[in-house]
Amino acid sequence: MLYFDHCASTPPHPDVVRTMAEVMQLHYANPSSLHRAGREAEALIERARKQMANLFAVKPEEWVFTSGGTESNQLAIKGAAMRFRSRGNHLITTEVEHPSVYEAFRQLERSGFRVTYLPVDKTGTVSVTDLKRSLTEDTVLVSVMHVNNEVGTVQPIEEIGELLRNYPKTLFHVDGVQSIGKLPVNLKEWGIDLFSGSAHKLRGPKGIGLLYVREGLELEPLFSGGSQERELRAGTPNVAGIVAAAKAVRLAVEGQEERAAAMRALQSRLTGRLSSIPELVLNSCAPLVAPHIVHLSYPGMKPEVIVHQLEELGMLVSTKSACSSKDDKPSRVLLAMGCPRERAASGIRISFGDEHTKADIDALAAALAAAVQKLKPMERSETTTS
Amino acid sequence: MLYFDHCASTPPHPDVVRTMAEVMQLHYANPSSLHRAGREAEALIERARKQMANLFAVKPEEWVFTSGGTESNQLAIKGAAMRFRSRGNHLITTEVEHPSVYEAFRQLERSGFRVTYLPVDKTGTVSVTDLKRSLTEDTVLVSVMHVNNEVGTVQPIEEIGELLRNYPKTLFHVDGVQSIGKLPVNLKEWGIDLFSGSAHKLRGPKGIGLLYVREGLELEPLFSGGSQERELRAGTPNVAGIVAAAKAVRLAVEGQEERAAAMRALQSRLTGRLSSIPELVLNSCAPLVAPHIVHLSYPGMKPEVIVHQLEELGMLVSTKSACSSKDDKPSRVLLAMGCPRERAASGIRISFGDEHTKADIDALAAALAAAVQKLKPMERSETTTS
Repeated sequence: MLYFDHCASTPPHPDVVRTMAEVMQLHYANPSSLHRAGREAEALIERARKQMANLFAVKPEEWVFTSGGTESNQLAIKGAAMRFRSRGNHLITTEVEHPSVYEAFRQLERSGFRVTYLPVDKTGTVSVTDLKRSLTEDTVLVSVMHVNNEVGTVQPIEEIGELLRNYPKTLFHVDGVQSIGKLPVNLKEWGIDLFSGSAHKLRGPKGIGLLYVREGLELEPLFSGGSQERELRAGTPNVAGIVAAAKAVRLAVEGQEERAAAMRALQSRLTGRLSSIPELVLNSCAPLVAPHIVHLSYPGMKPEVIVHQLEELGMLVSTKSACSSKDDKPSRVLLAMGCPRERAASGIRISFGDEHTKADIDALAAALAAAVQKLKPMERSETTTS
Repeated sequence: MLYFDHCASTPPHPDVVRTMAEVMQLHYANPSSLHRAGREAEALIERARKQMANLFAVKPEEWVFTSGGTESNQLAIKGAAMRFRSRGNHLITTEVEHPSVYEAFRQLERSGFRVTYLPVDKTGTVSVTDLKRSLTEDTVLVSVMHVNNEVGTVQPIEEIGELLRNYPKTLFHVDGVQSIGKLPVNLKEWGIDLFSGSAHKLRGPKGIGLLYVREGLELEPLFSGGSQERELRAGTPNVAGIVAAAKAVRLAVEGQEERAAAMRALQSRLTGRLSSIPELVLNSCAPLVAPHIVHLSYPGMKPEVIVHQLEELGMLVSTKSACSSKDDKPSRVLLAMGCPRERAASGIRISFGDEHTKADIDALAAALAAAVQKLKPMERSETTTS
């Protein structure tokens, strides 16, 4: 089996698994306990926080550990909106955000906020001019993802940050779940106030989210109770998970440039091979796309049929985001990009990591060609029944 | 070093650590993915849920996995209050709850709910008659902990459940974080609607909370996004953590009776030894107390001084709950039990597990006697400076 679903989750690095088990065994005390074992556990967390700080040139206390990317996004968005409600009632995001961002805004809408959902062009890119036009005196928060989780489009975060410098009352949140370790991230230079990440998307453990919260910025917590994590998140910290997550981030960020170049080469290789299969349409448009994603459609074919056919051939790929892969609606992201409904309902996401080789990519391309050959006779009937 | 701080966190069972590492390595796919690896990860979670269901004689879908005890309590309380706000505006809890419960109610008070905090008697027990008097047509939720996390008092959950059967519009939440694996828990017989637990308190991994949500009961989620966990909690489930947590719960619950008896014997042995140290006052009153907790005060002595002195002698104990051990206020729980301020400000919590032996307990008692001897000259000055 070859696993090409890195956007959904990644195989944890062997060092990450080892660290997790070691810390669980040796440092099981509660880091809030006053005794030596508690202080040692706390010191491990603070070392992890410092590691994160060094990797992103920020202060240790600016990184908060949560239970995952969803919690990081929800805490950033709801926490900021609720905390600064008195500043204004307007929020801006895009039509192509991950469900954990999109649904946070839907909930805030129901509780009385006005939300602008910015459209995207056919590459999935948001327009900074559109954003500028939407900003008002009342805009409390702008949330734009760095890399789209379906098609991989990279948003103009730097330019948006530049624009927002002129709006000091408006906070800037970036969902970086798909970008950490794949693209450079410059939190301070880009004027980012809140930045979300997830350890299991970069070969770390599941159950650990990362949230950069700019110094001095307060949020309304989702969990109250103890005073852990700058009082932004009560609860016993997952010591082993945090240490393992910081290790994974270090491994992902330190060699990022070379690995991204290697993945970019695999990406070109794959899109090259696929261009000879006329049934498939490419939805991800390099070079505007992150290096680890290739997204395509087989119009007229249900994507789960292709996923299962590829599985028979030993290749694991996905349809849309894992979080919404079990509904059978067309992709909200592809519709926003102006894809016709049939193409939006037949998306296939291929996402890989640094463990993949050219041979893996060639095998995948061959399997895709074979799957299309096999499925071609079903094309029409799939169209009629869908 | 002997570790007597099981109420704060426990050494994970070696099988739990092994399971965690194995599942991380082998089943890293996202359980929401459609392909085989995703389905296998999902099957592991559903097996864990079924294990939980069998252990507590409920349905698998009645157990929801969260990121910890704090999240379980917050989701249960805020989720129920917000979801059923139209039913009424009154909530009831006690004065001795854990901060993750207590602060949820404080937040709900600020957002307009009326909250009754029931008092306790000098053993820390809430009165069912008081509760009955507080119930109104408007009471949406009653939340009472099973075992107090500082002094170990066991609340009359069965009687409260019995009473609440006459109030079908009032939900019953129980914080069972300190009781699972220590005392029998009968969710259905006791009429419980919501029951919280935490894996790391019973030799499971950190980062996994348990929440029983009675069939058909809806809650307002804290995290929106994907439709995981009955749409009560969006986010990629922590597969390895969940599997390891269910294993820990099984190990804790299956042999519960014999292990509780063994711990009860250690508890009696310890309180017997301590009765010969006149400086110490016992705050936990067996048999009304869970088998793994002994709580005492050294009036006139700052508890952190005792903790550090015991640490010198190789014994790790704690002051109050780990979540609030870093403030230096007197214990809210002891004050509610009517303890004088001096005694409430000098509490020491000893909590043990099934790995402890009589010899460990004897060593602890001897260390406590030695610590008191050593600290006695400081008694007066501590009192004056506090």
